[in-house]
Amino acid sequence: MTAETTGEAAGRTRRRGAGRTRAPINQLPWRQFSNPHPKLRLISDDEVERLHQGSVRILEEVGVRFFLPEALDLLETAGAIVDRADSRARIGRDIVEEAIRLAPARVTLSSRNPRHTVSLGGDEFVCTNVLGPPFSTNLDRGRRSGTLADYAELMKLAQFFNVVHMIGGSPVEPMDVEVPVRHLEAALVMLEVSDKVPYTFCHSVQRIHDTLDMIAMARGLTREQLRDTPSTYAIINTNSPLQYDTSMAAGVIEMARHGQPILITPFSLAGASMPVTLAGAIALSNAEFLAGLVLAELARPGAPVLTGAKTTNVDMRTGSPAFGGPEFQKSTIIGGQLARRYGVPYRCSNFCTSNAADAEAVYQAEGAIWSAVMSGCNLLMHAVGWIEGGLCASYEKFVLDVEMVQMMAVMLEPVEVSEATLAFEEVAMVGPGGHYFSTPLTLDTYKTAFYQPLISSTRNYGAWVEDGARDATHRANAIWKQALEDYETPPMPAERLEAASSWRNGRQKAARRSISGWAGRARWASHNGWRLTWRSHRGGRAP
Amino acid sequence: MTAETTGEAAGRTRRRGAGRTRAPINQLPWRQFSNPHPKLRLISDDEVERLHQGSVRILEEVGVRFFLPEALDLLETAGAIVDRADSRARIGRDIVEEAIRLAPARVTLSSRNPRHTVSLGGDEFVCTNVLGPPFSTNLDRGRRSGTLADYAELMKLAQFFNVVHMIGGSPVEPMDVEVPVRHLEAALVMLEVSDKVPYTFCHSVQRIHDTLDMIAMARGLTREQLRDTPSTYAIINTNSPLQYDTSMAAGVIEMARHGQPILITPFSLAGASMPVTLAGAIALSNAEFLAGLVLAELARPGAPVLTGAKTTNVDMRTGSPAFGGPEFQKSTIIGGQLARRYGVPYRCSNFCTSNAADAEAVYQAEGAIWSAVMSGCNLLMHAVGWIEGGLCASYEKFVLDVEMVQMMAVMLEPVEVSEATLAFEEVAMVGPGGHYFSTPLTLDTYKTAFYQPLISSTRNYGAWVEDGARDATHRANAIWKQALEDYETPPMPAERLEAASSWRNGRQKAARRSISGWAGRARWASHNGWRLTWRSHRGGRAP
Repeated sequence: MTAETTGEAAGRTRRRGAGRTRAPINQLPWRQFSNPHPKLRLISDDEVERLHQGSVRILEEVGVRFFLPEALDLLETAGAIVDRADSRARIGRDIVEEAIRLAPARVTLSSRNPRHTVSLGGDEFVCTNVLGPPFSTNLDRGRRSGTLADYAELMKLAQFFNVVHMIGGSPVEPMDVEVPVRHLEAALVMLEVSDKVPYTFCHSVQRIHDTLDMIAMARGLTREQLRDTPSTYAIINTNSPLQYDTSMAAGVIEMARHGQPILITPFSLAGASMPVTLAGAIALSNAEFLAGLVLAELARPGAPVLTGAKTTNVDMRTGSPAFGGPEFQKSTIIGGQLARRYGVPYRCSNFCTSNAADAEAVYQAEGAIWSAVMSGCNLLMHAVGWIEGGLCASYEKFVLDVEMVQMMAVMLEPVEVSEATLAFEEVAMVGPGGHYFSTPLTLDTYKTAFYQPLISSTRNYGAWVEDGARDATHRANAIWKQALEDYETPPMPAERLEAASSWRNGRQKAARRSISGWAGRARWASHNGWRLTWRSHRGGRAP
Repeated sequence: MTAETTGEAAGRTRRRGAGRTRAPINQLPWRQFSNPHPKLRLISDDEVERLHQGSVRILEEVGVRFFLPEALDLLETAGAIVDRADSRARIGRDIVEEAIRLAPARVTLSSRNPRHTVSLGGDEFVCTNVLGPPFSTNLDRGRRSGTLADYAELMKLAQFFNVVHMIGGSPVEPMDVEVPVRHLEAALVMLEVSDKVPYTFCHSVQRIHDTLDMIAMARGLTREQLRDTPSTYAIINTNSPLQYDTSMAAGVIEMARHGQPILITPFSLAGASMPVTLAGAIALSNAEFLAGLVLAELARPGAPVLTGAKTTNVDMRTGSPAFGGPEFQKSTIIGGQLARRYGVPYRCSNFCTSNAADAEAVYQAEGAIWSAVMSGCNLLMHAVGWIEGGLCASYEKFVLDVEMVQMMAVMLEPVEVSEATLAFEEVAMVGPGGHYFSTPLTLDTYKTAFYQPLISSTRNYGAWVEDGARDATHRANAIWKQALEDYETPPMPAERLEAASSWRNGRQKAARRSISGWAGRARWASHNGWRLTWRSHRGGRAP
């Protein structure tokens, strides 16, 4: 790559290799974002209360199925009415209100690199990369099934770009690694490549333990020390409507007991898994969140839990989720009102349905980012890289999203209105008909006064055509390539990496033994096949 | 065009021509939009007041240049301190506060088609097409200098799409028509092709009179009746900093006297025509607006005036306006706070800098639309079709913008939280583990429950590839073509069209006589050349 192909991220240039000069990528410096402005309200406080009461009524009168007996035990002990034959627990409002009272309003996640410690709650606003797509795509090699190599590349981009505050989990599923050992490989690469707050793979209790063990090793902590130091998190989806399967319920309990925050996000589709009305879908989805919150607070009082809204509607023509549409934006904003009612941090998502990193992907994403921020979002999952309703990670969309998130972060910065910034003396000096190109204030501050875009350009049409008339997606292509070149592995003491690595080897052998027989292989193949079939309908377990 | 090429705007199909079937374009029905939700505040009320006082201080101590003696006369009579040698008027705060008091909070613009009457003020939210680019582009024929034929095509699109509530003026400049007669041709085509509220061409007093005459004829009104019936509007830009040239000042006075609303929009570039600080740029730009407001209210007390914010920063690398960036979004939102302080309707803009209808154009546009709506925007100018910092109208961007505006309109619709929409009975009936595809509520409402997109699609990757893997911009291409096919000329009594047309002919002759000599030709050529040169730098008079 030459200076010509690195886009317009101008500024200083530096020498690389045999005399080549190139502009470095001009991104915002690392900092946690903040949204100190009033949050948007789409419904009244009375209506928020009505939604809450609707959710409570569902929990009391309809109840929630938990397929994990331990979950039913905890709930029964707390006073819920449990029907073992149907695995159903009807949860009284007193139990719910107590859980809301116990849940902390804020959680700080520390990281191996203290600079990358983040805080979730209040006005804080934090972003992650896309999580879980089985495919990845870019303009160079097209769309393909996820590999561990692509996983590592995208993880490097997540480390490189400062707007990715935390690792969102697998930026692409390494489908070339067998399922029983996939989380081990994925965790090791994540910890090697990034020093940002890592994600805990949580599809089973074993995977949670494996990931927490490796995270503790990379941090140089014992598992007990890790418990007292929130350092990772996991996402639990419900099996809507009103079900927690064994691994989901176990995930809630395990993460709570290990002191790490849980994001409970019902995958809520109005007209499919939820009522067709937005209020009905939000109330039901919120009931599912509250059930998980109760379970977490019963497992460990004071367990940090985030509420995640991702209610959207089903597209009645295709049966697929209409991610990124106006119903999704509305439910995102109302979800924020509920989160403030409960005093728990709020997770949102940067969703879109487009099959390419095109205009559709971007207007849906920019709308998702705005609705999230207006809602008071604390954690934006999938902030960068998501396309195809979550089935694919796009390298170019990753960079486009970075630009959109950066713009939002700058938009949220306070505007100073003071004698100095009103600059009356300059206005009087320049007077009518002059200009401000060379006034003292301009000369002093012009280099940093305004946002310096990553992709956007104000070049005129002629200059743009001369440079190849590359659209924003093609300019983004050059940027991720440069980012991969510029990426630097964060330091980690050799003995910690060694510990995590040999531990992984041991666990791998054990896991492989369990799939060495015919039955194990068949189980693996069927599990994997099920995942793909399910996802090909774009329904099912959400990332 | 066949059913295969019309995209996925599915629904009913209808027969056209020789047995072809095609889905009609599935757009939102006509209605004026409303934003009943709380508006965003980026600064405190105290800071708003500080900005206002900053503007007042500029008006009192620095003053504004008006090159039109009549404007200085009006201001002097009102008590301003006028320096004739410098054409400068220093305007006291009492004069300013009186003008603010006189300006109406709302204006209703009636149209030839009563259905297309719109109201500007309060929670109302109204959109126009792009105004004034000298070039147009689409995927079929590329970018070219504006022609009257392209003007008519884009005007038809403005009439066809329901989210365009008012005509924004020339959707492309008909550069193939000589300047002295261009407004006559443009006005006639506008009135023939559209029955939405028309724009008044206002670069000179003569053009204002010509356009108002033709609008009155098309309405079957006298000019006196038109004065009592606000039916059109014009945009006045200042010559920043702190100058109103002759035609701008005359435009304010004429429009006020003729009872038609004026949008006063300083073209405010922080670091170029304005101080480099956002507060300084907004205070100065607001001072220019207030000066125009004073002039309008002196010309005719109670004249309807809209305040228009389009403060953005200059890109210090290219010297061009950084339309659509975060500084622009901030100033848009703060502009709304000032507009509410003054109780006048608020105009915003859907700006972007991109040279194509690509991802950049769209993230800037979606951000512009969100910041406008969050600011309490009453009139979104350039809502559809703008690219290249206003130098070019894109047919595909037009359609992409329609989709974005539609989504916003649906997002703003109230969410009903009631017994009926909470749908407890359905939740109880479906219970855990069921689905809502075939519940009574879903079956009753699924056809209309959710937004039906124009371009967005939830089709899976395989189906999308089979259909040609067309990105959103290419799907937008098919949609504008279909819109032009489906367009129907709105009815107008033959005698009114005849009156406007023969009047245009007479005026044309007179105007041509004035440019028939050598001097006239040279004047025309130099005027036109100046426009193009100026615009090629992307600065200068803003559309």
